[in-house]
Amino acid sequence: MNTALIILAAGKGTRMNSDLPKVLHPIAGEPMLLHALAAGETLAPEARVVVAGHGAEQVRNATFAHDAQIKVVEQTEQLGTAHAVAQARPALSGFDGMALVLYGDTPFIQAETLEKMREALMQNDVVVLGFEAADPARYGRLVMDGQQLDRIVEYKDASEKERMITLCNSGVVACKADLLFDLIDAVDNNNASEEYYLTDIVGLARARGLSATAVTCDEWETVGINSRAELARAEADFQERARAALLEDGVTLSAPQTVFLARDTVIGRDSLVEPNVVFGPGVTVESGAIIRAFSHLEGCHVSRGAIIGPYARLRPGAELSENVRIGNFVEIKNAQIAEGAKVNHLSYIGDATIGAAANIGAGTVTCNYDGVMKHHTHVGAGAFIGSSTMLVAPVSIGDGAMTGSGSVITSDVEADALALARAPQVEKPGMARKLFEMLKAKKAKMQRGS
Amino acid sequence: MNTALIILAAGKGTRMNSDLPKVLHPIAGEPMLLHALAAGETLAPEARVVVAGHGAEQVRNATFAHDAQIKVVEQTEQLGTAHAVAQARPALSGFDGMALVLYGDTPFIQAETLEKMREALMQNDVVVLGFEAADPARYGRLVMDGQQLDRIVEYKDASEKERMITLCNSGVVACKADLLFDLIDAVDNNNASEEYYLTDIVGLARARGLSATAVTCDEWETVGINSRAELARAEADFQERARAALLEDGVTLSAPQTVFLARDTVIGRDSLVEPNVVFGPGVTVESGAIIRAFSHLEGCHVSRGAIIGPYARLRPGAELSENVRIGNFVEIKNAQIAEGAKVNHLSYIGDATIGAAANIGAGTVTCNYDGVMKHHTHVGAGAFIGSSTMLVAPVSIGDGAMTGSGSVITSDVEADALALARAPQVEKPGMARKLFEMLKAKKAKMQRGS
Amino acid sequence: MNTALIILAAGKGTRMNSDLPKVLHPIAGEPMLLHALAAGETLAPEARVVVAGHGAEQVRNATFAHDAQIKVVEQTEQLGTAHAVAQARPALSGFDGMALVLYGDTPFIQAETLEKMREALMQNDVVVLGFEAADPARYGRLVMDGQQLDRIVEYKDASEKERMITLCNSGVVACKADLLFDLIDAVDNNNASEEYYLTDIVGLARARGLSATAVTCDEWETVGINSRAELARAEADFQERARAALLEDGVTLSAPQTVFLARDTVIGRDSLVEPNVVFGPGVTVESGAIIRAFSHLEGCHVSRGAIIGPYARLRPGAELSENVRIGNFVEIKNAQIAEGAKVNHLSYIGDATIGAAANIGAGTVTCNYDGVMKHHTHVGAGAFIGSSTMLVAPVSIGDGAMTGSGSVITSDVEADALALARAPQVEKPGMARKLFEMLKAKKAKMQRGS
Repeated sequence: MNTALIILAAGKGTRMNSDLPKVLHPIAGEPMLLHALAAGETLAPEARVVVAGHGAEQVRNATFAHDAQIKVVEQTEQLGTAHAVAQARPALSGFDGMALVLYGDTPFIQAETLEKMREALMQNDVVVLGFEAADPARYGRLVMDGQQLDRIVEYKDASEKERMITLCNSGVVACKADLLFDLIDAVDNNNASEEYYLTDIVGLARARGLSATAVTCDEWETVGINSRAELARAEADFQERARAALLEDGVTLSAPQTVFLARDTVIGRDSLVEPNVVFGPGVTVESGAIIRAFSHLEGCHVSRGAIIGPYARLRPGAELSENVRIGNFVEIKNAQIAEGAKVNHLSYIGDATIGAAANIGAGTVTCNYDGVMKHHTHVGAGAFIGSSTMLVAPVSIGDGAMTGSGSVITSDVEADALALARAPQVEKPGMARKLFEMLKAKKAKMQRGS
Repeated sequence: MNTALIILAAGKGTRMNSDLPKVLHPIAGEPMLLHALAAGETLAPEARVVVAGHGAEQVRNATFAHDAQIKVVEQTEQLGTAHAVAQARPALSGFDGMALVLYGDTPFIQAETLEKMREALMQNDVVVLGFEAADPARYGRLVMDGQQLDRIVEYKDASEKERMITLCNSGVVACKADLLFDLIDAVDNNNASEEYYLTDIVGLARARGLSATAVTCDEWETVGINSRAELARAEADFQERARAALLEDGVTLSAPQTVFLARDTVIGRDSLVEPNVVFGPGVTVESGAIIRAFSHLEGCHVSRGAIIGPYARLRPGAELSENVRIGNFVEIKNAQIAEGAKVNHLSYIGDATIGAAANIGAGTVTCNYDGVMKHHTHVGAGAFIGSSTMLVAPVSIGDGAMTGSGSVITSDVEADALALARAPQVEKPGMARKLFEMLKAKKAKMQRGS
Repeated sequence: MNTALIILAAGKGTRMNSDLPKVLHPIAGEPMLLHALAAGETLAPEARVVVAGHGAEQVRNATFAHDAQIKVVEQTEQLGTAHAVAQARPALSGFDGMALVLYGDTPFIQAETLEKMREALMQNDVVVLGFEAADPARYGRLVMDGQQLDRIVEYKDASEKERMITLCNSGVVACKADLLFDLIDAVDNNNASEEYYLTDIVGLARARGLSATAVTCDEWETVGINSRAELARAEADFQERARAALLEDGVTLSAPQTVFLARDTVIGRDSLVEPNVVFGPGVTVESGAIIRAFSHLEGCHVSRGAIIGPYARLRPGAELSENVRIGNFVEIKNAQIAEGAKVNHLSYIGDATIGAAANIGAGTVTCNYDGVMKHHTHVGAGAFIGSSTMLVAPVSIGDGAMTGSGSVITSDVEADALALARAPQVEKPGMARKLFEMLKAKKAKMQRGS
């Protein structure tokens, strides 16, 4: 069945104490809204609608930056979840598949869970996602009648017997789109909060003789976030699960609690990650790589047998082939480093291609920015770049070529050539001693003067 | 009421297993003695007296380094807390306000608590600070008689009934100075330890018909430190409270347990602090700044919209204006960086002013030290400093000027000028290949020879 | 009594989900096999035999790399622990002392425990290591008869009464070598698993009228490792014990849980270790040193009063004398740094000797590698190396000499001399402005064109 996602993202999140809309606060380096979207996107939805409200402009921009195909509609008044869903109606005009209502502040719903809901909708008119709560507290309860969901009852309206129910409401709902909007039309706000509740559609559907059921998931999938302390706890829980999954998959993390992962981090079997490593979004590491302590990786690829760090920073677009070695205090950005090449110390390699088995000396810089534009550097296979070589881009160093330490290279260098840009060494005997004496005398004089 | 602080700091701290006096061991990057002082200083005291004993010279030096106005007196024999307080008498000669007795190894007393004691002293002759102990264990108990403090009873001297009391003695005492020293004169050492106990002044005061009362605080404020394990636990507890307070104030800490804060760290709302950031003393960060992973800040100011790190080190005197960008492996010391300037990679900027929107290339160094003295570097607004430029201070680069990569700049550069210090590039065709062959042959010969 | 170690290291460790044999997975930076060996080596054994099986070639190589004197024998079929021990027989031909059977996946046995076993063997024919289990679960039980060990009973074969026993079997066994192999000859595989169990030798010995006893140790010493999650937990437990021991010894760790230690890390009293420091194998730090945040040390020595970091990396062979200062983003490898020398910023010092009180400027590189061989750099006492000096090894800088910033030094420099290799500074008035305008115009044209 074709799917449309409706992501509710209008809440203010007062308890966040922030000018940033709640759904844009990051988990694992990405706005939590994107986590909810990512789970839904595994269903290959035909349409995606984000319902923004507080901070709508910021939500619109962040959504657009992620994927310009996602529609953002605005709920100008916050009149309840049913009212929020109703705002998506025009954007889904003509769509006749399943509408799935998700929440921008509930980032951990798993794709498998949503797939189960889609399957359940084959046999039912309304599907609600529930969870067995360890401590049901004040959650709404799902009142089942066999396999059918009879109704959703809010805690405050629940009888003593209903309060014994531990199957609770996550708020996530699946329903054919046309039926969903029909039911919403019938929802009223005759309740204490004077809000239009999406949950009311279950009772309305049953009253019409339609079927409803519940699909269940683990409680942690439904965790909602309302304060920064909860955000920090959700982040910690995410990290704990992600680390455990890596261990299970055969990755060695010597101090798991010091490794920070993103939603999409991929690390191959028998790779080793030392303490204090941060993975931003978009990193894939093949099998048998070593990521040493204090490394920081974002948007990059590390191939089999590569050794990274300690203190290596791989920025977006860094692509490292097999057995590459990136050492300490080295930054790689938007650069392809071919097999067996080494950048071991104190270098910045940006907007560049480095050939196989090339050796980049300590303190090398690709001078990629002229103050206005960025330019490209090419270093050939087997080239030897002397320490503190400035490669002023655009520039190309041929295969097997060599540059002298401390050279500023502004013109292309042919294969197998040696390029130098170096002033001759001059020695002034005794001059260091004289200079020191002079400077010390000057300092003494200044101190007497003061 | 005028206030004088008397800080007892004479203990040896045998269990610390250290040559450093216990009160100089650091919490949150500062000697714990300074934490106790800092709480007291919010009362704007007229006089402050530290009573040193073990390691008195070290305590004297550390105190003097912090604030030369603080008096340090020495208790040459450790004969008890009353005896220690008595040592402060000459230093407070003529002072007739409130004397507040604090402890150098009790760093977490809050300023609000001390203010409550000062208020209570308006109505009473002696005020003792107590706390409700979760596990009273062997603490001394405060025996109350309504609002009046009847006496302080040591655990070992307490009756079964008194041991049921959970209100315990912190040791912190407030009293008019002249009365305090009078009462202390009357304290004797007729007890098992043959020590003069400050707590005895309560009983003595009541016997004279004077009034005494207790003010209470949270138990954690009164934590004393006696071993390195306790020190580590106190540090962890401090950090946990400080992190929770930041979250409450609207700061995002993605992994709070990896962020280390100082006593005086200020971070504005909606700033983001990534994992593994260390704040030393004296840091203020305005709203909406981003401190990326693995950064280290001490004695610096970061303005709104600035982005720092990863791997940035801001040392004392670094002052960053709005929207400044400090990148990886960059050290900033005693330097003002104006709005929108960028120092993105592998640079050392010390003793400098950097103009608005200036761009400092990778590998730039302000050569501020000539082996004897430090000198200043100025870079003008909009200047473009090429990669690996050596700015040999004192030197000034004009607004909008540019330096070529790899230049050593020893003379001032005019506004809008281009300065270069660069040897021409020379290419020796085929020479790299010849060099490699020669070196390989040499190595092979050495290996045959060995 | 002469001792031979037999280390069983043949297991596959299926649950590790790894191509690396289980015993080569690291704890505290070293294969866990080496931990077991290290404990045994304190007995000064005459012979050491590792019984490899799965991944035997890898185990052989790792063992050889550690110590070429250790024998590695192969158990081609895994038929049980007695069968594994039997494989060591030829390697111990002629040896007539104590054979001690250890396990490559049980890394925490303490040397003191093994010494106790050796002593017990003076009075007994067989000695088994047991432990009081907090939760005996499915461990084998040691059935004692007074001081004599009657038999070892597997959980599944144990009676209800035997299951009440909390003294459990670690598997570690000591026995005279000739007797051990005799007993093993008598072990059969008439059991559910059809394996030859080493534990059967106890019953066999008692049946022959020989004596057996148990020595006990703490439960944590006997922890075996079977999955990566268990490996991570064992690492965490190791770190916790190692940190607590340092605190006890008078070392300050401001955030113990962020400091990672190796098996052999030595840190002197009153040294301070800030948060986020990683110690690899082979590090000794004397008293009163300061290791600042984000530092990484391996195979190095730090003397009294030295200050390291933040962000300092000391690699194998770094030897720092008293009061040396190594600052941020500095890498030191195979280099002796004499008393009071400073390398404060962004430098790579490898294969070098640095004289007392020398000052190495920011961005300095010892260019030790010519693409084929490594060469040595010497800097004399009191020398001043200007920022971004390239020291092209082999090269020697005399005592008290100075190099100008940005110089490439290829020839030796005499004592007290000033060496420069620097192009003169040239200024082109207005040229920066023209360049910027030209580049901006070019960019605008490109953008129009696209």
